[in-house]
Amino acid sequence: MRIILDGMGGDNAPAAVVEGAVLASKEIEHEIQIIGQQELIQAELAKYKYDEKKITVIDAREVISNEEAPVRAVRSKKDSSIVRGINMVKKGEGDIFISAGSTGALMAGGLFILGRIQGIDRPALASVYPIVGSIPSLLVDAGANAECKPNNLLEFGIMGNIYMEKVLGRKNPRVGLVNLGAEAAKGSTLTKAAYDLLEHSDMNFIGNVEARDVPKGACDVIVADGFTGNVILKLTEGLAWNILKLIKSKFTDGAKAKLGAALLLDKMKELKKEFDYSEYGGAPILGVKGPIVKMHGSSSANAVKNTILKGIPFVEGNVVDTIQNSVLEIEEITLGE
Amino acid sequence: MRIILDGMGGDNAPAAVVEGAVLASKEIEHEIQIIGQQELIQAELAKYKYDEKKITVIDAREVISNEEAPVRAVRSKKDSSIVRGINMVKKGEGDIFISAGSTGALMAGGLFILGRIQGIDRPALASVYPIVGSIPSLLVDAGANAECKPNNLLEFGIMGNIYMEKVLGRKNPRVGLVNLGAEAAKGSTLTKAAYDLLEHSDMNFIGNVEARDVPKGACDVIVADGFTGNVILKLTEGLAWNILKLIKSKFTDGAKAKLGAALLLDKMKELKKEFDYSEYGGAPILGVKGPIVKMHGSSSANAVKNTILKGIPFVEGNVVDTIQNSVLEIEEITLGE
Repeated sequence: MRIILDGMGGDNAPAAVVEGAVLASKEIEHEIQIIGQQELIQAELAKYKYDEKKITVIDAREVISNEEAPVRAVRSKKDSSIVRGINMVKKGEGDIFISAGSTGALMAGGLFILGRIQGIDRPALASVYPIVGSIPSLLVDAGANAECKPNNLLEFGIMGNIYMEKVLGRKNPRVGLVNLGAEAAKGSTLTKAAYDLLEHSDMNFIGNVEARDVPKGACDVIVADGFTGNVILKLTEGLAWNILKLIKSKFTDGAKAKLGAALLLDKMKELKKEFDYSEYGGAPILGVKGPIVKMHGSSSANAVKNTILKGIPFVEGNVVDTIQNSVLEIEEITLGE
Repeated sequence: MRIILDGMGGDNAPAAVVEGAVLASKEIEHEIQIIGQQELIQAELAKYKYDEKKITVIDAREVISNEEAPVRAVRSKKDSSIVRGINMVKKGEGDIFISAGSTGALMAGGLFILGRIQGIDRPALASVYPIVGSIPSLLVDAGANAECKPNNLLEFGIMGNIYMEKVLGRKNPRVGLVNLGAEAAKGSTLTKAAYDLLEHSDMNFIGNVEARDVPKGACDVIVADGFTGNVILKLTEGLAWNILKLIKSKFTDGAKAKLGAALLLDKMKELKKEFDYSEYGGAPILGVKGPIVKMHGSSSANAVKNTILKGIPFVEGNVVDTIQNSVLEIEEITLGE
């Protein structure tokens, strides 16, 4: 397997990306190719001992920033790490593309270069959602599609279900639809119609899930339109950050509190770790004809390493083909009716 | 002023409601009338010393539960505390109706009995949103309208702005629109069009606010469609609850941790208080021709007391008339163009 890693994406690139590649390379036999401005990547690589057969560098001169309009950037910057990297997956020169770069550009690149899986109307961004005190859930769509039709939500469920099984190893995951209430009749026109479609699928659909139960792990695959999914993901991030900050300020306020906090240092570290997404790899773009994974812009070397490791079952589990076959089956059943 | 209090709504009714009325009554000169099954309310009242001129009971035999279809319940249960209470506001026999009962029934009752304020297309539920370490924001719509048009979001902003100024005492509040990104061009068709309307209003509109910045107090009035607002409110509740639960379990795990936690007991209490909505009163239904306030179903006596106290500026600040006048002004300007 050959893993193509974007050397230019993310706040800490190329340093964190290169270090992550070196760390991952020690645990796997697969080849990692880092694509981007060669001299920058080589300078970082020079800081480490690594197997030169397993980590190589491919020069690509252009960089797509988060501020650029994604579609225009992908169309004009042919020599960017993102466009070149996705093209390598298309040509079979690479098996997966991993990047901490612009989500929009990765989505646009996936759509224009690889194309949609036949039968998938809207590819989606799937994001691991941390459940404190338990294994994480998977949120689909995490923000790629601000507006959705009911069949899009069905597709998000199907794709998330497959990724959850094949990559995150959850058997028969519980698929839930984010909605205003538990009853089937609740919600918007969109969620009511999506409920109907999901209920008639062969997935383990557990029905509507209220937002208050999402952080409690009420379902394994959290289905939502991209607007709602984005709100869920970002609100969780912002609120957890805020609460931890408040705890810190309270626990350093006065000598007595400081002593108490010192005794709880280990526990506080454990607590912080509960919100660490980095263990579970990045966010796959599901529904395009090839594996692409988006990492958080502020990914650490450890997060990069874990995303590379989780990329292996994404490829070996044939997630893309499985999604294709599942959707074709549904189409056949529907057409046969 | 005469405050009409629903004796039958909420998980702890009538006990918490009655106790809250007694507590409030000690701090104000206004009359409180508790409506509901007389014998139950009287039995609770008998537990306290109170001024019999300031707290009286009105018998209403029917009860609307949370499980009932709101529209049907309001239409059929004419002798319910909710229908009778709202009718008292309509007839001028009461100045405000406060209830911990079914949100749907309160909304339906407000619409059918009081009617919409002229120029308001969709009344909304406004909910205080706790900002840890700071004063709270106000979220409109918190879940009454799962589907919205751009002008509904403008109306939510206008109504929230007025309530924030008149009742919560925030001068020139910052009005923000929940969206996928900070740029005006981001988001769904709905949010893009709403942005345009809000930008051209005379409110202190600060633009789009990402969900991650909502818990940090990025704006005072949080404008969102009811689906998104409901997700924000409930996710915050669920996540905060979950984090506090996790802290508790970590801090009682082992003798060292327990000692540390003992030293931090005061701070932990302060922390928990940050999430206590009860201080800020209930959630007003804005856009109907009279003050109605919905309290949380699990409201404590203290929450009931605070809701009663906050109900006074809701009435005395002429919030309903101010909304009416603001909307008429906008209509005149629009027609004049």
